[in-house]
Amino acid sequence: MGLALDEARRALEHGDVPVGAVALVAGEVIAADHNRREELGDPTAHAELLVLRAAAAVVGGWRLGDVTLVVTLEPCPMCAGALVASRLGRLVFGAADPRAGACGSLYNLCSDPRLNHDVGVTHGVRAAESTELLAQFFAGRRAAR
Amino acid sequence: MGLALDEARRALEHGDVPVGAVALVAGEVIAADHNRREELGDPTAHAELLVLRAAAAVVGGWRLGDVTLVVTLEPCPMCAGALVASRLGRLVFGAADPRAGACGSLYNLCSDPRLNHDVGVTHGVRAAESTELLAQFFAGRRAAR
Repeated sequence: MGLALDEARRALEHGDVPVGAVALVAGEVIAADHNRREELGDPTAHAELLVLRAAAAVVGGWRLGDVTLVVTLEPCPMCAGALVASRLGRLVFGAADPRAGACGSLYNLCSDPRLNHDVGVTHGVRAAESTELLAQFFAGRRAAR
Repeated sequence: MGLALDEARRALEHGDVPVGAVALVAGEVIAADHNRREELGDPTAHAELLVLRAAAAVVGGWRLGDVTLVVTLEPCPMCAGALVASRLGRLVFGAADPRAGACGSLYNLCSDPRLNHDVGVTHGVRAAESTELLAQFFAGRRAAR
């Protein structure tokens, strides 16, 4: 999660909401990135999607059953759906997102018996640091208006 | 929808589930693609995500409020979440997907007052042709086993 928080801070360099993610296989980091929506002008360039794509390139296929994704914020519906679509092995996230979280807050896409895959989830890891980063970012944006 | 169905057929050339999508602005096609998950080994390479990314590149930003996405099958949670994340103007889809559809079947991410955007949806357009393409594909795959 330390590496994911470092990634989140990098998003600030280009004015993106600070969310970072890291993918691991057997404890080894195989991909890391952060939210680049504003930088790339790409609505799908959330940290999680970028890291899932990079991880798939490393693994050599779209099934990521051996991969653990560590992300600073609870994934949104798009990203949570991508975890299911990639048959992800495990998700670890920091802060819950009561506004758009889809891994326990608004939805729980990671554990829906109607879908074809369950993702094991660990949450609340270094959540205070993630929340603080986000709070500072949004306070700064409000002040700049 | 004719163009989206043509795209869906192209997915068959590389063994991908036949789903196609087209993005339009003011009636003009600005992007078209099909499911390339197997071809690219990318869990996020569904037709919708590829077209949203291409459309954002054409529009020059991640907000796609002027864009209509036409897709042959009801979007999954990942793709439906991406429609919300891109503030899409309108969605037109063909066949409903009772197994994974997230625009009315299992979920309705396009119309959830808790999320920050509503996507107007038209559905059932040339649904029989889309269903037939998918049925042929899955029948062929079963026969090959």
